[in-house]
Amino acid sequence: MEQPLVGVIVGSQSDLKVMEDCTLQLEEFGVPYELVIASAHRTPEKVCIWATGAAGAGMRVLIAAAGKAAHLAGVVAAHTALPVIAVPMKTSDLGGLDSLLSMVQMPTGVPVATVAINGARNAAILATQILGAGDEAWRAVVTNYKEMLSE
Amino acid sequence: MEQPLVGVIVGSQSDLKVMEDCTLQLEEFGVPYELVIASAHRTPEKVCIWATGAAGAGMRVLIAAAGKAAHLAGVVAAHTALPVIAVPMKTSDLGGLDSLLSMVQMPTGVPVATVAINGARNAAILATQILGAGDEAWRAVVTNYKEMLSE
Amino acid sequence: MEQPLVGVIVGSQSDLKVMEDCTLQLEEFGVPYELVIASAHRTPEKVCIWATGAAGAGMRVLIAAAGKAAHLAGVVAAHTALPVIAVPMKTSDLGGLDSLLSMVQMPTGVPVATVAINGARNAAILATQILGAGDEAWRAVVTNYKEMLSE
Amino acid sequence: MEQPLVGVIVGSQSDLKVMEDCTLQLEEFGVPYELVIASAHRTPEKVCIWATGAAGAGMRVLIAAAGKAAHLAGVVAAHTALPVIAVPMKTSDLGGLDSLLSMVQMPTGVPVATVAINGARNAAILATQILGAGDEAWRAVVTNYKEMLSE
Amino acid sequence: MEQPLVGVIVGSQSDLKVMEDCTLQLEEFGVPYELVIASAHRTPEKVCIWATGAAGAGMRVLIAAAGKAAHLAGVVAAHTALPVIAVPMKTSDLGGLDSLLSMVQMPTGVPVATVAINGARNAAILATQILGAGDEAWRAVVTNYKEMLSE
Amino acid sequence: MEQPLVGVIVGSQSDLKVMEDCTLQLEEFGVPYELVIASAHRTPEKVCIWATGAAGAGMRVLIAAAGKAAHLAGVVAAHTALPVIAVPMKTSDLGGLDSLLSMVQMPTGVPVATVAINGARNAAILATQILGAGDEAWRAVVTNYKEMLSE
Amino acid sequence: MEQPLVGVIVGSQSDLKVMEDCTLQLEEFGVPYELVIASAHRTPEKVCIWATGAAGAGMRVLIAAAGKAAHLAGVVAAHTALPVIAVPMKTSDLGGLDSLLSMVQMPTGVPVATVAINGARNAAILATQILGAGDEAWRAVVTNYKEMLSE
Amino acid sequence: MEQPLVGVIVGSQSDLKVMEDCTLQLEEFGVPYELVIASAHRTPEKVCIWATGAAGAGMRVLIAAAGKAAHLAGVVAAHTALPVIAVPMKTSDLGGLDSLLSMVQMPTGVPVATVAINGARNAAILATQILGAGDEAWRAVVTNYKEMLSE
Repeated sequence: MEQPLVGVIVGSQSDLKVMEDCTLQLEEFGVPYELVIASAHRTPEKVCIWATGAAGAGMRVLIAAAGKAAHLAGVVAAHTALPVIAVPMKTSDLGGLDSLLSMVQMPTGVPVATVAINGARNAAILATQILGAGDEAWRAVVTNYKEMLSE
Repeated sequence: MEQPLVGVIVGSQSDLKVMEDCTLQLEEFGVPYELVIASAHRTPEKVCIWATGAAGAGMRVLIAAAGKAAHLAGVVAAHTALPVIAVPMKTSDLGGLDSLLSMVQMPTGVPVATVAINGARNAAILATQILGAGDEAWRAVVTNYKEMLSE
Repeated sequence: MEQPLVGVIVGSQSDLKVMEDCTLQLEEFGVPYELVIASAHRTPEKVCIWATGAAGAGMRVLIAAAGKAAHLAGVVAAHTALPVIAVPMKTSDLGGLDSLLSMVQMPTGVPVATVAINGARNAAILATQILGAGDEAWRAVVTNYKEMLSE
Repeated sequence: MEQPLVGVIVGSQSDLKVMEDCTLQLEEFGVPYELVIASAHRTPEKVCIWATGAAGAGMRVLIAAAGKAAHLAGVVAAHTALPVIAVPMKTSDLGGLDSLLSMVQMPTGVPVATVAINGARNAAILATQILGAGDEAWRAVVTNYKEMLSE
Repeated sequence: MEQPLVGVIVGSQSDLKVMEDCTLQLEEFGVPYELVIASAHRTPEKVCIWATGAAGAGMRVLIAAAGKAAHLAGVVAAHTALPVIAVPMKTSDLGGLDSLLSMVQMPTGVPVATVAINGARNAAILATQILGAGDEAWRAVVTNYKEMLSE
Repeated sequence: MEQPLVGVIVGSQSDLKVMEDCTLQLEEFGVPYELVIASAHRTPEKVCIWATGAAGAGMRVLIAAAGKAAHLAGVVAAHTALPVIAVPMKTSDLGGLDSLLSMVQMPTGVPVATVAINGARNAAILATQILGAGDEAWRAVVTNYKEMLSE
Repeated sequence: MEQPLVGVIVGSQSDLKVMEDCTLQLEEFGVPYELVIASAHRTPEKVCIWATGAAGAGMRVLIAAAGKAAHLAGVVAAHTALPVIAVPMKTSDLGGLDSLLSMVQMPTGVPVATVAINGARNAAILATQILGAGDEAWRAVVTNYKEMLSE
Repeated sequence: MEQPLVGVIVGSQSDLKVMEDCTLQLEEFGVPYELVIASAHRTPEKVCIWATGAAGAGMRVLIAAAGKAAHLAGVVAAHTALPVIAVPMKTSDLGGLDSLLSMVQMPTGVPVATVAINGARNAAILATQILGAGDEAWRAVVTNYKEMLSE
């Protein structure tokens, strides 16, 4: 089994359907990842332990998806020095504006990298771009993908 | 020194000025409280330890004030069975709509009791009402206050 | 028949379906409650009389659910010293932002404890937390529930 | 002393400055009015009694001004068959969107006639138009005013 | 044929379905009305002529319903001294927030009386309340209706 | 005196300060214009007559600036076949979101060309671009301006 | 084959269904146009080349339709002196408010002429009005259309 | 002179004051950067050339700051495989909601990593975290910073 480079954490079972676009894209890029379901509010310990240990476990980028008062990405970012990508889930009442503001408006000192509402696939691309920042091989994967897009 | 019944936690030094209305009102009501400054993102351990220990330390209601992607109340609520009151801070760009949605839209299982943007004094009143739910003496304090208001 | 500890008031028949999650959760927790349908605008007397008498009737927390220009929680809070939980109903045009702002932005002196849009189950949990503020037995119910959540 | 035809009620002392434009315009039009300060939340009895008695006291239109979770107009409308004009006050955090939605989104059965945020003068003009609906003399006052406007 | 007291104008054929609640309520109250379809943008002359002539034709209150950049009520109000009630239509993209702001935020000098998004029935009730401001018989109709509501 | 090619209409005296950027830019470009102050609500006749006559008077593009429930551009567009540029004015309560939605959300059949909130200078540039659509000389003016911008 | 006067560019295949109303209206008016699918983000070269060459190819007005962070109209406008009409696409989460603000709020120097969310038909009418600014024949087409509308 | 690892691009001179927090933080961390002023709309060539060449010039992360219809980050991302951080500038009318939505809502295929409105310092921290994803030395810088924060 390959060492996961990207850790994907989702706040609830119900977010998995949207986030499938993320994991499929990671697979398409050949990026090894691990997927965890844990809630910042219902299982905070699990989130803290996972986030705290992620760098040591060899991961280099984390992706957190959650909806409504979406604290997951922020809580993860509070426990790691790795870059954290936030995916705000669309909500049935406010369309995801609540998730978006809860994620993107992080206070000074603890940023998260927010993508579009339900932007699952873009989270995977951004994660690969981040891997590619320090590794020509991963950057080539993104370059190829962008060339394919433009065709 | 009296046992604090209400714990007030604020996300940053800069929230203290608004929250003074809260602590002044608690003092006016004679409610013993303790005040802590800790950030869900910058000092997550401190928040977890405080929240986890609050009930055992004799507190009965917690008040959390924070701004922007305001996760403090939710993180506190994740670590205690006590009721948690959330005070969304007004923000300079979005007026506090970000703080409000980040606090009030909590997912099923972990509610917080949100008051108005910058509603510091109301947080103190609500905390006293909660004390009064199970204690006639505190309820009388609120009843007197409401009578005074109506004069 | 047991003495109700929580009073649930809904603004209209049509809110009952959402609020069933609230009453079911109260039943699951074993919290005795009473349910009233009354409108702050169409049957104001009924609301005033109910709210004014709630404390004397032995209730300790009130829950009010309403939509659009949702005044119900505020009107109830104006007539009681008990803590009042507000549940903003989702609306078909503005998604519940109208209900939320009409509830949460209460003026100084008369707070309500607002939960998420359509946050019916969370209202029940918060009500039980409030009972638990002054009563170890109810707090244990919440503690157990939180442990169950984390599993 | 002339019989007041218009009743103006404001939620708090602090709304008086904005509402001066309303009373000045009523005076300019020669419309007799009475001005009351009462809060739907802090002094609900006073509001109910005033609203319930307004028609019997000879008033024909009521104007209610309030801010934030602005329930005043709705509570007044719940207690009278007279038309009620609502003036949403500008708020320091959300600009008055909260006041506006809390007033205009009234449920079926109990309308209020909402004017612009801080639309104090317009409330006076609308009140006079309503008097003019059934009285040629008042309608002439509005007609003259509109002619003056167009010059 | 009875003299219409209320004039109802709708911006487009597609608004008729929602506004049926308005005309049905007027019929239930026995208020004679006339219904006109005319657009402030596509048939401005028709709107101007109708609005200018409404008072002379014996009408006492006008109701205008329109959606999106909803100028109809404002254009009507610009051409009459009668009170004008505005009904913002729900829109498929912004939920009616566009219609609401386009109607309610009228500039000083030319108010309209705005009701809730899609508040067709409330427009009819408000129109009858306005008739009742100067006529005890119509006020009695509203009083009876409110009594019926409270049962 | 040169024949004006662009007609600028502003809803009120108070909009002139912002719109100075528009007329200064037109002057800088050498575009002859005329400036009119007229309100869609207070002086509707004046607006109608001006808009109806604009094409015959030799104008080729119209610019309308207004705030709040900003109907001016729509009313102008209803009376001319010329293209109409709309400039939504910033408002003190809602920041200009009301003006923007009141202008841009025009119904099918009667478009206006909306620029940014307080986008006075851009309205002048867009007007010149429109002149340049059918006239190489004006297009050259815009081309030069864009070259200057990029330096 | 006739020389296209209007260039229509859409950001993605999925926008074509809405924009059919635009091309149908252009055909109804007899305005020759060309239609291009190209993304400001996925195929930026294609957009730049098309926009840069549009004036030389004889086009006089451009229409750009895109959704979400809708940069297409702005990018096109950055590369041409022709007037650019922007059509913000409705989005499934925020209703098109994101597309609208991304298009209309252009910085000083580079305006786009924004129409309503999904305002495809209005874009065609506005384009024809712009052609008509410098050409009586096209203006007559619009005049006839407006007469037809008013019938 | 050291090879810049981070490229910072701002849309206009006026954004420099806010972005000083970004460059100061990069300096504090010892991250070599280059700063460019270029507008996606006024100087699109300059932006394209810079973005296209950034990776080849040895940069590993890009930061783009812009306001209103903020296309800069998206345009940069369209021309590079490097990760792009977007900083939405606060705006005087809509508070930065326009900048935020214009940046974060990027379409599938071309993500940008959005931080808070005016989140200049957080952009620098996130850039360093991204460098640290593939380089233990930079990760240590972030780890030290986070330890300092928590004290």
